[in-house]
Amino acid sequence: MMYFTRDHIDRLEHLYKINLINSVTGFKSANLIGTKSKNGIANVAVFSSVVHYGSAPPILGFVLRPTTVRRNTYDNIKETGYFTVNHIYKEIIEDAHHTSAKYASEISEFDKTLLEEEYLNDFHAPFVKNSPIKIGLKYVEEYNIKANGTILVLGEILDLYIQEKLVADDGFVNLSEGNIAAINGLDCYSIPKLNKRLDYQRPKV
Amino acid sequence: MMYFTRDHIDRLEHLYKINLINSVTGFKSANLIGTKSKNGIANVAVFSSVVHYGSAPPILGFVLRPTTVRRNTYDNIKETGYFTVNHIYKEIIEDAHHTSAKYASEISEFDKTLLEEEYLNDFHAPFVKNSPIKIGLKYVEEYNIKANGTILVLGEILDLYIQEKLVADDGFVNLSEGNIAAINGLDCYSIPKLNKRLDYQRPKV
Repeated sequence: MMYFTRDHIDRLEHLYKINLINSVTGFKSANLIGTKSKNGIANVAVFSSVVHYGSAPPILGFVLRPTTVRRNTYDNIKETGYFTVNHIYKEIIEDAHHTSAKYASEISEFDKTLLEEEYLNDFHAPFVKNSPIKIGLKYVEEYNIKANGTILVLGEILDLYIQEKLVADDGFVNLSEGNIAAINGLDCYSIPKLNKRLDYQRPKV
Repeated sequence: MMYFTRDHIDRLEHLYKINLINSVTGFKSANLIGTKSKNGIANVAVFSSVVHYGSAPPILGFVLRPTTVRRNTYDNIKETGYFTVNHIYKEIIEDAHHTSAKYASEISEFDKTLLEEEYLNDFHAPFVKNSPIKIGLKYVEEYNIKANGTILVLGEILDLYIQEKLVADDGFVNLSEGNIAAINGLDCYSIPKLNKRLDYQRPKV
């Protein structure tokens, strides 16, 4: 095993450190967050920190650094109160990853990629057309993380669209069936295929 | 596409709802969190909400409900200040999943499964032997999520152990190479294999 102490980690070269530490939490969700500014500019950006916070009410959270390109996402959510979460799937990985490029706020990533914006049932923020899972959310609250200045943003699900073939009789959604991606580190995309459901666990006697 | 409005989601049968909403954030990290109580009882529990919060300093976060079995994890962290995050890999999926069973706090999941506890370099909390990535963390802070009563716990990395063959020259850690799992929903485990690294993106001219 390679062994890194904290002192060792702190002294690593910048790129090595961010590759390493971004990898060691494990596989991450691969999502495009869609927003629209008050001026009507649609924004879409890749995120790998979307996490389940609860089912009743249905709440998701994601983390952002206020200093990055994804600031547009944050500003639009604060301005309008709405955003969408759209799953990245096999065919759009390259375009999804390209949304990490630092475009000025007056430029829409939808115009710089083959990703298509789509408006459904009068929801304010754009969905990503053809994504197998599309979620429309309303901003709920945020937490400023003292430890490093990041922001946890929470939203509640208002609208949810899922490809019919992914949904099992008990509500389980088979992500592999939709060729949905997972992210490893900063730049590695995987399409997990083999999977296995296990039973609900009770203590052994 | 299946279309669920918020009103529809709120009225879903309980199990269907938790399967559905736990799936729609995408693939999740698959980790075992190890802790030890003041009384010396080692605890290990599966979590799928471990997320990267920052690299400098190196900070991870995870979410828990104070009312579940994983309360032991939280109590031990608060009592002692330390915990470990260990990646679930192919060979231990069943035992890892079994740690979700509701054992009393005086029973160690290490005694009820083939998972082995391991103590490295005087770190207080137990690591999971043979896990390809093992992380020793110190509690930093927590946030009580008003929206639903969950708790976000943040820890900073003190010690990090990674199988040598997983670490690339630039610090990227190849999770697939270690047969590391991802979680889909509440009970589905996948070993993502095919993966592809993409370049750092700059705006197109």
